[in-house]
Amino acid sequence: MSRVTLYAPADLQSFMVRTFCHLGIPEEDARIAAEILLAADLRGVDSHGIIRLYTYYGNRLAKGLIDPRPEVKVLRETPTTLALDAGTGLGQPVAKRAMQRCIAKARESGMGVVTVRNSNHYGIAGYYAMMALPEDMIGLSLTNAQPLVAPTYGRTAMLGTNPIAVAVPAGSQRPFVLDMATSIVPIGRITVYDKAGKEIPAGWGVDSHGKITTHPAEVLKGGALMALGGSDIMRGYKGYSLALLVDILCGVLAGAAFATQVGHPGVDRPADVGHFFAALRVDAFRDLDEFKRDMDSLLQEMKQAPKAEGQPRIFIAGEKEFELAEYNHREGIPLLDEVVKMLKKSGEEAGVPFDCPPVGEAER
Amino acid sequence: MSRVTLYAPADLQSFMVRTFCHLGIPEEDARIAAEILLAADLRGVDSHGIIRLYTYYGNRLAKGLIDPRPEVKVLRETPTTLALDAGTGLGQPVAKRAMQRCIAKARESGMGVVTVRNSNHYGIAGYYAMMALPEDMIGLSLTNAQPLVAPTYGRTAMLGTNPIAVAVPAGSQRPFVLDMATSIVPIGRITVYDKAGKEIPAGWGVDSHGKITTHPAEVLKGGALMALGGSDIMRGYKGYSLALLVDILCGVLAGAAFATQVGHPGVDRPADVGHFFAALRVDAFRDLDEFKRDMDSLLQEMKQAPKAEGQPRIFIAGEKEFELAEYNHREGIPLLDEVVKMLKKSGEEAGVPFDCPPVGEAER
Repeated sequence: MSRVTLYAPADLQSFMVRTFCHLGIPEEDARIAAEILLAADLRGVDSHGIIRLYTYYGNRLAKGLIDPRPEVKVLRETPTTLALDAGTGLGQPVAKRAMQRCIAKARESGMGVVTVRNSNHYGIAGYYAMMALPEDMIGLSLTNAQPLVAPTYGRTAMLGTNPIAVAVPAGSQRPFVLDMATSIVPIGRITVYDKAGKEIPAGWGVDSHGKITTHPAEVLKGGALMALGGSDIMRGYKGYSLALLVDILCGVLAGAAFATQVGHPGVDRPADVGHFFAALRVDAFRDLDEFKRDMDSLLQEMKQAPKAEGQPRIFIAGEKEFELAEYNHREGIPLLDEVVKMLKKSGEEAGVPFDCPPVGEAER
Repeated sequence: MSRVTLYAPADLQSFMVRTFCHLGIPEEDARIAAEILLAADLRGVDSHGIIRLYTYYGNRLAKGLIDPRPEVKVLRETPTTLALDAGTGLGQPVAKRAMQRCIAKARESGMGVVTVRNSNHYGIAGYYAMMALPEDMIGLSLTNAQPLVAPTYGRTAMLGTNPIAVAVPAGSQRPFVLDMATSIVPIGRITVYDKAGKEIPAGWGVDSHGKITTHPAEVLKGGALMALGGSDIMRGYKGYSLALLVDILCGVLAGAAFATQVGHPGVDRPADVGHFFAALRVDAFRDLDEFKRDMDSLLQEMKQAPKAEGQPRIFIAGEKEFELAEYNHREGIPLLDEVVKMLKKSGEEAGVPFDCPPVGEAER
């Protein structure tokens, strides 16, 4: 348990908008970026929220590595497909508009696919997939990322944690929203164990010899994360292949950087991250109401299935995040003391002091 | 090591064609089904090859549970999408034609998606994804299947091993061909350990209480397979969510059976399996030659990455299967003695005796 201070979502959002604007981002783009960072904090994906305001975005804007007013170019376009060049702009605004155009194509043609090259970290992948939900479409969002994951039988970081996000509408049930890294855990989880002086479960990462290690420091220093599945006996090559597939679609197909060439916060060159979006109309295949009725019964069948001993509940992808978002929206977003301290320090330096009033405290 | 007898691929194929024809399948459909079963044996996916000729197909044709001359119906169609009803026909012919129509749509419109309901087991998912390769397209093939996998925190089989297959063309390198069950291992792997009296690695399956077990018999009797990832600490919910996603696309979106309703060889009702296919033109997004050049360099970068100690090689999805297919094509397809015995016995009963001459013997 750690002590956290609670903040009103609107206050954090307003602070982030002001910070982005101060760094030269046009107000509309600043609002989009802040909204998507806030969505991460609301859904409990702290690693992709306000904590990244400076490391992923602010510092790189200040250094000129992210163009605050990029020229976004159309490279190729058909009624169903679109390839964009983000002009080294902030990931969130170009990604949100790319998914909007993807949805518009799907509305006209049944489906749409949009790729983006020359972009930056776009926050949580699930945000863009979920944009399809109010349109009664199935949404897909993929991105590549800085190298952190070893291929099976490898010993160095060659691929990003390359997430796969898919959102599917339902009827009375909450939608199915999968938003998963193709690694077992994110690198931040290893850092948490390292700071706490705890061992990590065998299989999360390898050391610099490619051996599975339980020492987080060995993963962080010259080792790498393992892909979903872990060891070969547990079929970790499937997770590695999924990570590679995401890099093929976001890096190679989009014409962005791939594998070890994808930039990261610690490297002073444009990141050239690539994204891949798809939207699919449900009613191109069947009656929408029938689809939603069957989605409800599939999801309910899973939740009502017999539980393992000692387990009270079976979850559907996205369910925990929806519940947490409602809770955090009501109670306030919890920030660790060290995060608040960082925001205060970096806010002073950036010229937009962190002035959000706490609305409460809690143990989490 | 087990003793195997080697058979010429053409002989096995001819035997399967004659068997299917004898069971009432039109010759063109029989050729398709035999070709796809043979492709599994060539690629080393023995579990989906000639070994299933009677259990998955022959016996069910004889019982009238598979319609040998189905009326395949178009339910909905647009220039990019198509929803088919397979009329309880054999999975392979309808699936191959569905993917052909998917590719034709992609040729015209940049991409295509086709769903199929009311179908049967279609063999290896990868076969259909690979049909996109000669067209310079990316192919996707998914199917649901009989329940064998427990959801995370569950203790009964609720979902199939629901495979994901994706094929991507390259230049001088072999294509990327992922064809993975969303469970860690197939049920056949558990049976092999059980017969051999060996323990299974912890994480492959749960017993009837939902506890991870190393006893294969406990998985087979009232337990279930675990999804990719395994336990919750290893993020097995990601594999479970991928399996559920495949069921959403193949079961719910296609309008086929889903979850525990999907039929299986041991149940005397139509299986109502669903499939989902997609094809995407590479040149809708970038110049094809540039794409292939970058695919080559991505795949080479993976293969040349530093190896874990004691590991000579890093693989690309599909590489082992391509090599094995070439080898088996040249040397003959290896069948275990017990499989040959079964083919002889069932062949007599079905009225088409197994008369393929052995071309050699080996230890595998």
